[in-house]
Amino acid sequence: MSVKIAENSGFCFGVKRAIKIALEAAQGNHEIVTLGPIIHNPQMVEKLTSEGIERVNEFSEIQGRPTIIRSHGVKKEILEELIANNIEIINATCPYVSKTQEYAKELSEQGYLVVIMGDKNHPEVIALSSYIEGECLIVTGAEDIPKKKYQKVGIISQTTRKIDDLQKLVSTFIPKCHEMRVMNTICNATSIRQESTLELAKKSDLMIVVGGRNSSNTKMLAKISEDFVETFHIETACEIDKKWFKDKENIGLTAGASTPDWVIMEVYNKIIECMGNINQKVEKIKDIPGFKEEE
Amino acid sequence: MSVKIAENSGFCFGVKRAIKIALEAAQGNHEIVTLGPIIHNPQMVEKLTSEGIERVNEFSEIQGRPTIIRSHGVKKEILEELIANNIEIINATCPYVSKTQEYAKELSEQGYLVVIMGDKNHPEVIALSSYIEGECLIVTGAEDIPKKKYQKVGIISQTTRKIDDLQKLVSTFIPKCHEMRVMNTICNATSIRQESTLELAKKSDLMIVVGGRNSSNTKMLAKISEDFVETFHIETACEIDKKWFKDKENIGLTAGASTPDWVIMEVYNKIIECMGNINQKVEKIKDIPGFKEEE
Repeated sequence: MSVKIAENSGFCFGVKRAIKIALEAAQGNHEIVTLGPIIHNPQMVEKLTSEGIERVNEFSEIQGRPTIIRSHGVKKEILEELIANNIEIINATCPYVSKTQEYAKELSEQGYLVVIMGDKNHPEVIALSSYIEGECLIVTGAEDIPKKKYQKVGIISQTTRKIDDLQKLVSTFIPKCHEMRVMNTICNATSIRQESTLELAKKSDLMIVVGGRNSSNTKMLAKISEDFVETFHIETACEIDKKWFKDKENIGLTAGASTPDWVIMEVYNKIIECMGNINQKVEKIKDIPGFKEEE
Repeated sequence: MSVKIAENSGFCFGVKRAIKIALEAAQGNHEIVTLGPIIHNPQMVEKLTSEGIERVNEFSEIQGRPTIIRSHGVKKEILEELIANNIEIINATCPYVSKTQEYAKELSEQGYLVVIMGDKNHPEVIALSSYIEGECLIVTGAEDIPKKKYQKVGIISQTTRKIDDLQKLVSTFIPKCHEMRVMNTICNATSIRQESTLELAKKSDLMIVVGGRNSSNTKMLAKISEDFVETFHIETACEIDKKWFKDKENIGLTAGASTPDWVIMEVYNKIIECMGNINQKVEKIKDIPGFKEEE
């Protein structure tokens, strides 16, 4: 009977960076806001609120206060409006997301029909599409490609998608276009995390995926895991049901890029409790067997 | 019992054009040569010799005579040498091949590692690679990609390859590079011809593929057909063995882009003869049931 944590799980570089930027900005300023949740984890957002970082949802709620740009980025027009209103911008956009925005702009300027592989309702994709002049096509995968021919297609991806979905998309476009330029904008940490989850899922009887319900990368981990084994996507330990572990031997645990250590730890301890191995409880994430901190 | 010819077979635009250029040039000039075979069909090359167009294999054999550049193109250095020696150039390079050479040059100048999908010993690929400054990678397909990571990969294809091989190549490169630019240089007529062959092969008990043994596109048609049904790749009717047709009902016939009509016709008539349907013999290719002339 074992509980193993995926070798790569929890906070990624972009999330760590965004939180660091937010906390540093909050230290010298008690009138600070984020426009939308800074990361897709309600527990972390709540913690930041307790540190004096208010989350607002609309531009009108900013009321002149210094504004943190969420890790997923915001629409170009919002940045322009903040500048026009002389509002201090604290940019916590993940640098990989910013780079994808630059590619979107560049491909669009070079006359490519820009294709974004991603979720059209996700803030990262909404922001990304604002950098494209003229037409753009947002697809979740190869199955969404319209039945027509194209001249120049420029492909980018939401940073948290699966590499094999990008491979299928690109392959399907080949007979449908004359020229294709692809920027592989899937974040490397995302790919590594997905591989770790896949490996662990193959060896487990049950997988617990921890992370925000709106978190694209967490949902993707759950999707990858589901293909191999029974999987539960939860936000916190209190959602765990003891019944899940009946007759299970090997439990796998993984967490999205925006899931804080303490949330993973609580889940780990709760699983241990459910399985009757009370003395294995841990108080720090680095003590958890199999956990490797990501740089 | 039937003999069907693939809907699209025989001379393509580039081959027709090359022969027209050669014959027109020969009319006003009896001292004309081609450097290498103008197309990959020995029967047609022989016919051109009888029209006074001598085929030479080495630069030294040109001896100042006006020189036809073969449909597959020649190395940049050879063109430069012809110019330096004040030799009249009659360029019969297929325009689609010339375009591929331009892409090779452009991608190379833009800092891409240029990847050519093709046969490294084929004259088209030898010529193509001469337009690339610095390193280039010639692969027959996805299985030849080295196990390493790349920054910028620019992919082009020999014009006569299979589109699904290009799809596999591109898909395999995605996780191995940051940026990819693909020019789909597979000639449209090639793709259409391959589709026609595939369709016919599926409905036939036996396939005869007619064309030069060195002809890349003909070899590709044979390869496609072989996956479905017994297939013979022949150059001329005299290679046909009556035994092949024993107990066969539906014979399919297809021909490469450099196979002249009269060669296809002779093969068709020989098959009819072998099958005992002597009265179906034809004297012109357009009379052959199922044959559609390509524009």
